[in-house]
Amino acid sequence: MSRITLAHGGGGRASRHLIEHEIAHRFASGPLEGLPDAATLSAPCTGLVFSTDSFVVQPLEFPGGNIGHLAVHGTVNDVAVAGGRPLWLSLGLILEEGLPLELLRRVLDAVAAAARACDVQIVTGDTKVVPRGQCDGMYLNTAGVGAVLPTLALDRRRLAVGDRVLVSGTLGDHGMAVMCAREGFELANAPRSDTGPVHRLVMAAAACGDGIRFMRDPTRGGLAAVLDEIVDGLAVGVRLDEGHLPFSAPARAVAELLGVDLLHVASEGRVMAVCSPEVAPEVLHAWRALPEGHGAMDVGEVVAEPASVTLATLAGGRRIVDVPLGELLPRIC
Amino acid sequence: MSRITLAHGGGGRASRHLIEHEIAHRFASGPLEGLPDAATLSAPCTGLVFSTDSFVVQPLEFPGGNIGHLAVHGTVNDVAVAGGRPLWLSLGLILEEGLPLELLRRVLDAVAAAARACDVQIVTGDTKVVPRGQCDGMYLNTAGVGAVLPTLALDRRRLAVGDRVLVSGTLGDHGMAVMCAREGFELANAPRSDTGPVHRLVMAAAACGDGIRFMRDPTRGGLAAVLDEIVDGLAVGVRLDEGHLPFSAPARAVAELLGVDLLHVASEGRVMAVCSPEVAPEVLHAWRALPEGHGAMDVGEVVAEPASVTLATLAGGRRIVDVPLGELLPRIC
Repeated sequence: MSRITLAHGGGGRASRHLIEHEIAHRFASGPLEGLPDAATLSAPCTGLVFSTDSFVVQPLEFPGGNIGHLAVHGTVNDVAVAGGRPLWLSLGLILEEGLPLELLRRVLDAVAAAARACDVQIVTGDTKVVPRGQCDGMYLNTAGVGAVLPTLALDRRRLAVGDRVLVSGTLGDHGMAVMCAREGFELANAPRSDTGPVHRLVMAAAACGDGIRFMRDPTRGGLAAVLDEIVDGLAVGVRLDEGHLPFSAPARAVAELLGVDLLHVASEGRVMAVCSPEVAPEVLHAWRALPEGHGAMDVGEVVAEPASVTLATLAGGRRIVDVPLGELLPRIC
Repeated sequence: MSRITLAHGGGGRASRHLIEHEIAHRFASGPLEGLPDAATLSAPCTGLVFSTDSFVVQPLEFPGGNIGHLAVHGTVNDVAVAGGRPLWLSLGLILEEGLPLELLRRVLDAVAAAARACDVQIVTGDTKVVPRGQCDGMYLNTAGVGAVLPTLALDRRRLAVGDRVLVSGTLGDHGMAVMCAREGFELANAPRSDTGPVHRLVMAAAACGDGIRFMRDPTRGGLAAVLDEIVDGLAVGVRLDEGHLPFSAPARAVAELLGVDLLHVASEGRVMAVCSPEVAPEVLHAWRALPEGHGAMDVGEVVAEPASVTLATLAGGRRIVDVPLGELLPRIC
């Protein structure tokens, strides 16, 4: 057996063989050891955070990671920025008939390695197979359950004029890496995906308690879309400072080549926090002490301009940061 | 806007419009009212049950339901048969560019109606769009979180000789309904899907406590695959009694026409329980008092034949119930 067949999705012996020999043992230290249809878990009584994401990225592998890393990090990060400590993930696989088993193994290895690195367990799963020509190899879904971090009271309505806007590192590397991989650009210095977990950054910020107003991970639509959504309907806005926005040299080079605004491009391993000016230096210090936060920057502030997102340019001007209507970089996660 | 476009999956304003105007309001009574990336929930301290399923059924609509009903019932049922009371679901949508919005609305209405009928809340979600030609209209994923029902101690290793095998109603209607819809058979008396929730049946059985050894829903691979999996490696087996197996007349007619064994065909609204002979009449009585269990039957018993599944035929013989190796009826859920 070197490729996935429709029989692997039929619920019979071939399905069970695939699950037992290729999937379950990779996650065997956890509750998945028994029947994998459902897991029984001891609940954190502090409250739960629950989130889900599907992943349809093309290509499945790219510099810096593959769809398996994204599937773990994406949901770990959604749970984290909602104020939870991620504990358990489900894994739903939709596989295309003919998918090389070697590729599936690389992706499952990535899922297992990323879960270990994030200290979460894959506890339940499901596998479907669809005919050739569907689903571009594979789609993944993860759902995540975490325990509420009690010190955080995240609510975008708590944004106050003078609050600082922090990001944990360079912006847009993931989107540019996937774009270059998809288009087959041959670059000496290609962008690498930033895919990675942000839950340690969130927990470091949680130590600053009430001073943290809101957090999000700038994925689809980039920092621009996230900020636009956050200030929607509020009496305040955000002014970014162009001189402080962190971009990697490879992402910047490709973005200039393609005429893309990196504020619209997804990161998959960054977090954005709005916090009081008092705690901002403390958060930056804590973030920079972590490998995943060494490039953290204070990139702007909350201003008394209703529902606006603007950029103070290097040239001394101001411009509105717009939000793409639709699909700037399709299928980057 | 009458069809899904790639822009609906890009993370920009079109995405947000779709989520706000077509998705979130259908589930607006719950925690999804805020930002839908993640939900914060008060945890049941008794312990959690966590499960997931992806749905790739073709066609998307069939007599008795659509993919939206399946997506709710499938995960509700997985949580229930693992011994949990279903509480919350996530909903992941993968949509094909060009999908008629009317069809999406019918499916989302089905999700909302099924969730209400099951007394569960859709609390978090995710939407992706893939290009034309992918994903046959849509794939759905649900993950479910429930509270452990403390009276149940479900473990297939507790099966004992003399235990009874109960099913809550006719077997195989879902698989035959989807097959007939897919092939376009024009039948006066076509099978209808049995898609429906089994959690009330599970809770009724839970009142019999320790006498309930194990439960499963006979989905992919049918009752045969479920029993084969349950007795795998055990010192006991199951003998089914052909005379007591409940099949609907339409499913039986189509199965005979196609030469299909209904023991291999999926139900999506049935539960199978193995229980002590003492509590079996009580469980049957409780099940038959519920609309979804009025066709419940005692269909067999646990026998001292290691890891075997056999059928006592009407003619007085015995035959081995085999398990399909692979894909008998592809994509029925």
